[in-house]
Amino acid sequence: MEFSYKIDELISILGESNVEGSTNNKITGIASLKNAGSCDISFLGNMKYSKDVSNCKATVLLLPLNFEGQPKDNQVYIRISSPSYALTLICGHIEKHNLKKYSPGIHPTAVVDNSVIIDKTAYIGPLCVIEEGTKIGANTYLDAQIYIGKNVEIGDDCRLSAHVNISSYNKIGNRVHLHAGVVIGSDGYGYEFIDGKHFKSPQIGKVVVEDDVEIGANTTIDRARFSETRIGQGTKIDNLVQIAHNVVIGKNCLIVSQTGISGSSILEDNIIIGGQAGIAGHITIGEGSKIGGQSGVTNNIPSKSYVNGTPACSHYKSQKIISLSRRLPDLFKRVKILEEFSSEAD
Amino acid sequence: MEFSYKIDELISILGESNVEGSTNNKITGIASLKNAGSCDISFLGNMKYSKDVSNCKATVLLLPLNFEGQPKDNQVYIRISSPSYALTLICGHIEKHNLKKYSPGIHPTAVVDNSVIIDKTAYIGPLCVIEEGTKIGANTYLDAQIYIGKNVEIGDDCRLSAHVNISSYNKIGNRVHLHAGVVIGSDGYGYEFIDGKHFKSPQIGKVVVEDDVEIGANTTIDRARFSETRIGQGTKIDNLVQIAHNVVIGKNCLIVSQTGISGSSILEDNIIIGGQAGIAGHITIGEGSKIGGQSGVTNNIPSKSYVNGTPACSHYKSQKIISLSRRLPDLFKRVKILEEFSSEAD
Amino acid sequence: MEFSYKIDELISILGESNVEGSTNNKITGIASLKNAGSCDISFLGNMKYSKDVSNCKATVLLLPLNFEGQPKDNQVYIRISSPSYALTLICGHIEKHNLKKYSPGIHPTAVVDNSVIIDKTAYIGPLCVIEEGTKIGANTYLDAQIYIGKNVEIGDDCRLSAHVNISSYNKIGNRVHLHAGVVIGSDGYGYEFIDGKHFKSPQIGKVVVEDDVEIGANTTIDRARFSETRIGQGTKIDNLVQIAHNVVIGKNCLIVSQTGISGSSILEDNIIIGGQAGIAGHITIGEGSKIGGQSGVTNNIPSKSYVNGTPACSHYKSQKIISLSRRLPDLFKRVKILEEFSSEAD
Repeated sequence: MEFSYKIDELISILGESNVEGSTNNKITGIASLKNAGSCDISFLGNMKYSKDVSNCKATVLLLPLNFEGQPKDNQVYIRISSPSYALTLICGHIEKHNLKKYSPGIHPTAVVDNSVIIDKTAYIGPLCVIEEGTKIGANTYLDAQIYIGKNVEIGDDCRLSAHVNISSYNKIGNRVHLHAGVVIGSDGYGYEFIDGKHFKSPQIGKVVVEDDVEIGANTTIDRARFSETRIGQGTKIDNLVQIAHNVVIGKNCLIVSQTGISGSSILEDNIIIGGQAGIAGHITIGEGSKIGGQSGVTNNIPSKSYVNGTPACSHYKSQKIISLSRRLPDLFKRVKILEEFSSEAD
Repeated sequence: MEFSYKIDELISILGESNVEGSTNNKITGIASLKNAGSCDISFLGNMKYSKDVSNCKATVLLLPLNFEGQPKDNQVYIRISSPSYALTLICGHIEKHNLKKYSPGIHPTAVVDNSVIIDKTAYIGPLCVIEEGTKIGANTYLDAQIYIGKNVEIGDDCRLSAHVNISSYNKIGNRVHLHAGVVIGSDGYGYEFIDGKHFKSPQIGKVVVEDDVEIGANTTIDRARFSETRIGQGTKIDNLVQIAHNVVIGKNCLIVSQTGISGSSILEDNIIIGGQAGIAGHITIGEGSKIGGQSGVTNNIPSKSYVNGTPACSHYKSQKIISLSRRLPDLFKRVKILEEFSSEAD
Repeated sequence: MEFSYKIDELISILGESNVEGSTNNKITGIASLKNAGSCDISFLGNMKYSKDVSNCKATVLLLPLNFEGQPKDNQVYIRISSPSYALTLICGHIEKHNLKKYSPGIHPTAVVDNSVIIDKTAYIGPLCVIEEGTKIGANTYLDAQIYIGKNVEIGDDCRLSAHVNISSYNKIGNRVHLHAGVVIGSDGYGYEFIDGKHFKSPQIGKVVVEDDVEIGANTTIDRARFSETRIGQGTKIDNLVQIAHNVVIGKNCLIVSQTGISGSSILEDNIIIGGQAGIAGHITIGEGSKIGGQSGVTNNIPSKSYVNGTPACSHYKSQKIISLSRRLPDLFKRVKILEEFSSEAD
């Protein structure tokens, strides 16, 4: 994204900060301490990189309040309580000015049923399809080529990227961000096995996505068998994640890419799950727990646990087992020696 | 989905059953024994929940034929051979009356080549694209924004959700259900390595999906190098599964979410694969086998096996190894003691 | 795909070869040695199948230069330096004649901003959306229902399948092939944790896909936080792969299906990663390394390593540990015997 800021503009975005040095350069790029050049802004987010500051060629550096040292000529140090968050503020400002501009309304190529109720501040992009009985809230933005089934409710200030798919009867809260290719409300995977064949159990429940949820590209969330699959407020889900039917996820969870959560499991609040983990069906993960990447969780987990491995056990135990497994060649040799000794002693 | 049934209507959906109690309430919801309230129907699908029946506030309960106990006032017990299947019948009835209504025909915004042959009972939704030479069977329903390439054949009574993608030359049977974002017939992953670069092997085969197959959201199935990738009759595939080129899958298999099957492998009939499992290329999984979630299968598996772990071995052996691995800290201590003893004895 | 070749036509596609036998049959199919029949071509790509040649019923067989034996009546042997590559040449010829024919231009149903610059030899298929400021190069082909955001650059001779999604500000090189449902430039997964909630770090960087890259169906590649996510020249990525923000991948890598690469990691050139592997964030995989399927790589890997397992270690060590783990039941028994012996000796 292109941008150009004078120093004064940057300072006004950041709020309270301590500025040292001066420059007439405009800031047109962002880079790491090592890669930054003239007209870039850089930041010290992790103290282990502090030795890189003195050689950094950035025009502006965001530094912690207590950082010692002085800017070079034509360089500015901005000391601030959180340089990383300061960068986030600047990036947010850049993003806001580079997003596609739009006027509220419905693109003439969108196919929208007459019964649909769309707030007058919302935007429905080209080639979207919205079926009967659906409601779209204020300031909600639908990119393009999105499918919204019948009787769906979408709240205010949502952002849906292209090719998002929300099937009928699902409910989306406010300030929800759905990335490209997300599927909300595909049928749960359930069959009755009769006479050697699998007969589909109709999946007539719904998905409820609460406020402030973000869901990554091509992630799939199945509708419940008859009640609801629920994603709690403030939870953030990465790309290519699978959430099965009847799963209930609490508030402010983080679920990293390619994780799968099987049917009817419950995740309480504030849980963090690493990438490619698998959660079995019909279990409960206690509040505040942390699950390592690639783990396979097969049983209930108490609150504030930290588990790892397949099948998952406590992180400490899992690390211990891995470490001892690596010493198995040695252990087999030691047992061999003991056996030889014992046969001699026999 | 919204619905409202009088007791008599429910009974007529269920067929033979044994009804006790009476109510004038209409049934407008479905809930578990614990969550059900007035005007809900609930069911006892698993005897371990039988103690919840007496406190259940549902207006109607589906119970096994031999269940003892009596309904409260304004409550009805329906005893029936399979309460779970009875619920499936009711859900199916609800679903049928809540699906989007449509009249056969082609939506005016669909882009359909003149040479395409579409049965007069089929429905082609808004903004679908269908290329030359393709045939669509009777009562087949294409939701919206679907892409069908050239010379594709799709049978009768199929249901394709929005954003499904079937590329040229592939063949879909009857009563096939493809969920949102499914990709059928992407190129197989094959390259010739020449002079330090990877040159693409053209993938000119096809995918054949037999009758009664269901495929979950965002699952991908690659076309064969020159012959066919085949999904057998009655097989059900979950979301985000990867089926590589030249794979042949038998009848009535279940393949759970995020599993990957590598090129040219053969799955015989009636196989069940848990979530996130991986099957190596060029191997055969024997009929009736069961493969645990997150397993990695690297060799042929005989019929009726049950395997687990990476690399997969028999479930029994895999459980034994996990259990003994957890006792490694103890084993290392025991060997240490033996060594001390033996050095004293020396 | 349908085709029909006389022997002379086949020979002219193959270039230098040694032809024995004759036939008037036309070649209309390709099959393995075991499955081939009359009018098929078959090939001996792996010498372990050489015993199948004499019984093969194919009309034409592609064989290695030194292969002994003679064709039957009405059968032709073509001896050539690489039968597999010869087949690739023929498949390429068939594919070229079976792809959808198109004339350059923009389909009237595509929604293309006036500011977009499209080479006059490019093709934009039905119901594509292309936002302002974007450029599309010569001979580039966009299938259908594709979304291209604003200020995107796409080079020459690219092929994008239906439902591909490239968000704003990303850059695609020449001869890039993106399969159905690929998402390029979804937001990276980054949050600041403040007062018990996760606040989004704006993701304002981009994705750069270099020349000759192929990316499989439904794969997702996130844009960088502020710099770039990069896929190096000639790298081939399979289906359902996740590439997180700020990842940099070198040239001529192979990344098999369902692998996930976490944020800011660096893959040097010529790396091969098996299916369902996971690479942790902020690590470097050295040039020419090979990573086994389902591995979990948590640390830097030196050049030309071959690693396996979770957490990954050298392939040799990983195989050794697996092999010894399987002998744990025996080891526990042996230690038990030693203990009994030592207690007797006590």
